[in-house]
Amino acid sequence: MIVVMKADATAAQIEHMADHIAALGLKPQVIHGTHQTVIAAIGEERPGLTEVLEPGEGVEKVLPIMSPYKRASSELKRERTVVKARGLEVGGRRVAVIAGPCSVESEEQIVALARRLKALGATGLRGGAFKPRTSPYSFQGHKELGLKMLATARAETGLAIVTEVMAPEHVPMVAEYADVLQIGARNMQNYQLLQAVGDSGKPACLKRGMSATLDEFLLAAEYILDRGNPDVMLCERGIRTYEDHTRFTLPLATVPYLHEKSHLPVVVDPSHGTGKARLVVPMSRAAIAAGADALMIEVHDDPEHAVSDGAQTITPAAFKQLVEQCRRIAEAVDRTI
Amino acid sequence: MIVVMKADATAAQIEHMADHIAALGLKPQVIHGTHQTVIAAIGEERPGLTEVLEPGEGVEKVLPIMSPYKRASSELKRERTVVKARGLEVGGRRVAVIAGPCSVESEEQIVALARRLKALGATGLRGGAFKPRTSPYSFQGHKELGLKMLATARAETGLAIVTEVMAPEHVPMVAEYADVLQIGARNMQNYQLLQAVGDSGKPACLKRGMSATLDEFLLAAEYILDRGNPDVMLCERGIRTYEDHTRFTLPLATVPYLHEKSHLPVVVDPSHGTGKARLVVPMSRAAIAAGADALMIEVHDDPEHAVSDGAQTITPAAFKQLVEQCRRIAEAVDRTI
Amino acid sequence: MIVVMKADATAAQIEHMADHIAALGLKPQVIHGTHQTVIAAIGEERPGLTEVLEPGEGVEKVLPIMSPYKRASSELKRERTVVKARGLEVGGRRVAVIAGPCSVESEEQIVALARRLKALGATGLRGGAFKPRTSPYSFQGHKELGLKMLATARAETGLAIVTEVMAPEHVPMVAEYADVLQIGARNMQNYQLLQAVGDSGKPACLKRGMSATLDEFLLAAEYILDRGNPDVMLCERGIRTYEDHTRFTLPLATVPYLHEKSHLPVVVDPSHGTGKARLVVPMSRAAIAAGADALMIEVHDDPEHAVSDGAQTITPAAFKQLVEQCRRIAEAVDRTI
Amino acid sequence: MIVVMKADATAAQIEHMADHIAALGLKPQVIHGTHQTVIAAIGEERPGLTEVLEPGEGVEKVLPIMSPYKRASSELKRERTVVKARGLEVGGRRVAVIAGPCSVESEEQIVALARRLKALGATGLRGGAFKPRTSPYSFQGHKELGLKMLATARAETGLAIVTEVMAPEHVPMVAEYADVLQIGARNMQNYQLLQAVGDSGKPACLKRGMSATLDEFLLAAEYILDRGNPDVMLCERGIRTYEDHTRFTLPLATVPYLHEKSHLPVVVDPSHGTGKARLVVPMSRAAIAAGADALMIEVHDDPEHAVSDGAQTITPAAFKQLVEQCRRIAEAVDRTI
Repeated sequence: MIVVMKADATAAQIEHMADHIAALGLKPQVIHGTHQTVIAAIGEERPGLTEVLEPGEGVEKVLPIMSPYKRASSELKRERTVVKARGLEVGGRRVAVIAGPCSVESEEQIVALARRLKALGATGLRGGAFKPRTSPYSFQGHKELGLKMLATARAETGLAIVTEVMAPEHVPMVAEYADVLQIGARNMQNYQLLQAVGDSGKPACLKRGMSATLDEFLLAAEYILDRGNPDVMLCERGIRTYEDHTRFTLPLATVPYLHEKSHLPVVVDPSHGTGKARLVVPMSRAAIAAGADALMIEVHDDPEHAVSDGAQTITPAAFKQLVEQCRRIAEAVDRTI
Repeated sequence: MIVVMKADATAAQIEHMADHIAALGLKPQVIHGTHQTVIAAIGEERPGLTEVLEPGEGVEKVLPIMSPYKRASSELKRERTVVKARGLEVGGRRVAVIAGPCSVESEEQIVALARRLKALGATGLRGGAFKPRTSPYSFQGHKELGLKMLATARAETGLAIVTEVMAPEHVPMVAEYADVLQIGARNMQNYQLLQAVGDSGKPACLKRGMSATLDEFLLAAEYILDRGNPDVMLCERGIRTYEDHTRFTLPLATVPYLHEKSHLPVVVDPSHGTGKARLVVPMSRAAIAAGADALMIEVHDDPEHAVSDGAQTITPAAFKQLVEQCRRIAEAVDRTI
Repeated sequence: MIVVMKADATAAQIEHMADHIAALGLKPQVIHGTHQTVIAAIGEERPGLTEVLEPGEGVEKVLPIMSPYKRASSELKRERTVVKARGLEVGGRRVAVIAGPCSVESEEQIVALARRLKALGATGLRGGAFKPRTSPYSFQGHKELGLKMLATARAETGLAIVTEVMAPEHVPMVAEYADVLQIGARNMQNYQLLQAVGDSGKPACLKRGMSATLDEFLLAAEYILDRGNPDVMLCERGIRTYEDHTRFTLPLATVPYLHEKSHLPVVVDPSHGTGKARLVVPMSRAAIAAGADALMIEVHDDPEHAVSDGAQTITPAAFKQLVEQCRRIAEAVDRTI
Repeated sequence: MIVVMKADATAAQIEHMADHIAALGLKPQVIHGTHQTVIAAIGEERPGLTEVLEPGEGVEKVLPIMSPYKRASSELKRERTVVKARGLEVGGRRVAVIAGPCSVESEEQIVALARRLKALGATGLRGGAFKPRTSPYSFQGHKELGLKMLATARAETGLAIVTEVMAPEHVPMVAEYADVLQIGARNMQNYQLLQAVGDSGKPACLKRGMSATLDEFLLAAEYILDRGNPDVMLCERGIRTYEDHTRFTLPLATVPYLHEKSHLPVVVDPSHGTGKARLVVPMSRAAIAAGADALMIEVHDDPEHAVSDGAQTITPAAFKQLVEQCRRIAEAVDRTI
């Protein structure tokens, strides 16, 4: 940690901060610049140290040096994590495709769609049983009934079930049916939920919060990893910016950046990331070209009559094209689908 | 709702959409423009209708007309809501000041500070017992022990206790000690938590999510109101933007805008909103000048040794100045403190 | 245009707005909804009409229907524009690669580098002679001397020269040497400059402003097109968001979106778009997978000693890999490099 | 400057960077931490040094220590700058109010309005003769004719004229008529224009770019100051964020932050900053409470028939209230209007 003192900081203030640093168990090293003084604080950078040092008198700012996450870091664990759940493998040479409707609507729908998606190349089945909705008046999902429908679809197809869990107290129930527990963007910093998913022993798919930095994203993963659950996939699903022609802005540089900083596999969700069905196929290609380990795609037989998210949902016919085009891109980066 | 058809939409597509609108229980009115056709859908705009109409063939975009929130709207309830909890009143002529440390650290600390704050003009005492922290390795709060310390401070001073609750299963416990249940920015769309707070019967202080629109903010309030709990205060605490000289960007136009659209009172938190102790006093003045009904301020006897958020925490001496200066501003807008 | 009246607008206010619309040469059509009234204004949506209608009494908001740009629109011109400048073609089946240093430093440097880049597959040479710099104390470019160096490099290699022009009065001089006039992100709304470039008759490469919407971007192009210059390429170079791990956020959905709305070709600049050399290769692959017509890449023999932008500049060796990898992606989308 | 080396940087890489720093004329001081090594570079931090050091092998990041601006800094010049132009004084105890229409429309309009505004308390008259417009098809201003109208209004009222100049070649003409040259948000980084205004000898009102950081804002001011022109006022006019209920987000923490870092006076423009007439009065009050030295307000006799920006323009009647309310706030912060 580097404590930058103001240009007019007094000798007493500098000495006080050096003592403060020493009292915190770090070794202060004072560097007198031509313009101002900085103090390097040598030792382990614990979270919260910045906050403790910043209010000091004469302090201009505190610059952290180390990454705040540990277990998610590629420095701590060099070999890449491959998350496995039945036939779904995320993080290996094969790019995984997780597809399905926004909401599970009926057993008939989800089973028929799952068969179709499996035939077209999907290895995971997504579908919401618990739906976080901006308005209390929107459809909130079929809840446990929806989970049972997903389980039936799995029994029929063998596809791994990826579905969202919204509250710590639902984790045991959802974990009974699902193969992968998804944590939605709105809940990325719902720490009780992260810990409950960490304790569940089930693989997790953690979506990036819509205004989370990548440090915050990796720290959220850290909450799960810290409970002894190593199976976390990170899902980029778009961030909130001033752009208004898409629902969110999908920043694909996330993929190579996370691959450098972390050993965890990276999923991209171009359905939420764009909010427009017409943009899903090109952004799926781009995601794989950027190095994504998996795609998560909203597909519905009849988007016009989907109960939620129709505007960003593609048809099975478009999904077929998506897989065909993405397979070519995957081969161009020495991977398969 | 207005459905805008593409310039090259066919007559069949237009007819299909009109039929679709009628099948949804709305009355379609087709308007042929010089360039393209739009269809007005007359009737109640239910949430989710946009999503249902957008994927239609030939549709360019769907424009909602009505506000998505109902109970939070000033159209539904004209008289302004005043939230009362012991001596704390938010929404009346008197501007309330809620102050206290980021985290409750010890009984001795919180009692002494509460006495000091009360003497200086505070009517509410804030203090975290459950702390949402970005890193799992940061101090997470004293939990129930912290709540007991707050209760002791209330017994000594009469100040109303405002404290955060982070999970639905904690609501009964926190409600036992607190006068106002605070929902943090990270949990603004934690719907189970909103509903649990709605069911608790306790007044709620709902913080704006750091990338929430005001429609989303009011819809989150709607989750609480919809459970029959009318006592919601809305707290602007800064949003995430590209600005890097402050921790967040504090957009005070929120205050008059929410006052126009909603009957709920508006609190401003300049401590989180700026992240810099030196900016808290001027932004407190500005908040009241913009019409805020209350301030929420982080104060600590010794910010340099606070266990969290020291950089944005002011001393009791600065708080004294804050109240004095804000009192003059309050008078200039015909209010008191 | 749709004028949405407030729920409590009076009959007189509605009538007044209908008359106002008629006075503006549009045909008003009043639609009485269950909750509030809207007035459709039928006719050509001229720029500025929204501003004229919004302040009307009883008006809640005005919703535009039509795109504000005309000449840039794919509705007006269906066939795609291919911009040609010597051997550089942008918008055809072959993906173009424009490469070179941030700043032209010396004749020796630029000629040697141009030869190397040409051999590796570049068809355009970028290099700054006039440099817009955030600080007045930074190197501002070699100006006309730099242009002469670029011309020498062209004479030696045949590469088309793409270089920035910063002021209307410099356009004639820069146009004398350059094959493509680049308008930088900071100048996207420098209208005098846009018009001067429009009048120059030279192809233009227009960079997106760092907080421009795509409507604003296309309207900036419209300024050039409107002067009779049809040769405009649109360059996505990243936008400013809250993200801090990259210099800008590179939103590749821009590519398919602009291809749908406009006939103009789209260039992607992953050097500025990420600000990190290590992210340039994967984001170049992703750009082509998303459908980009060209890449613009900063390359320097010795980035550590480049006079500007070293952190985002790649070496010729990395550029060689970039072209090889991008060639495979181009083939996977039925294009070439 | 602090160069942070990667955890796995080799001794040779560290030595190389230390040598590199020394070759740049700075004194390297190597600090071996428990986890990684950092090198402090002692000496003057010239602009561009970060860029030169970042691409070094083994370098993780480079952290600047000093502010990049000099002449704008309150460290260099302690006494506050007061900009004077006729009766307009910005930066003193009296808060200045600059008011007028978005565009100058006719001599009759501007003279009548100027008289009215002067009587109500304005000391400066704003009005656009050259109008930067997003669309080439919008009204672009009356140009020199408009300047003459402004001069007539000044002759009649004595109000100082504040008007925008859009291109370096227009500076002499605009300077002939105007008392203060305004540089618009879109041109904040139009460096030729900044230098021309710097050379003009006229006071400048520099508007913040809509996605500029405050460092960039002060560096833009530095371009003017560096030409020997000390009379610069900084105008906060709102930034672009994801918020959609206002045209821009007006971040008032800019005011105290700039007052701390710079000696230049700060103007706030709540008209552009909100884009909504109804929000202009409360945000004007808030701006003064935050410490603004001046307001810039769009006023028109008949906003519904203004040729531009009607939605954010207030009437003279509302302006009267604005001044009355702001006067009370000014008194509450020991200033006058």
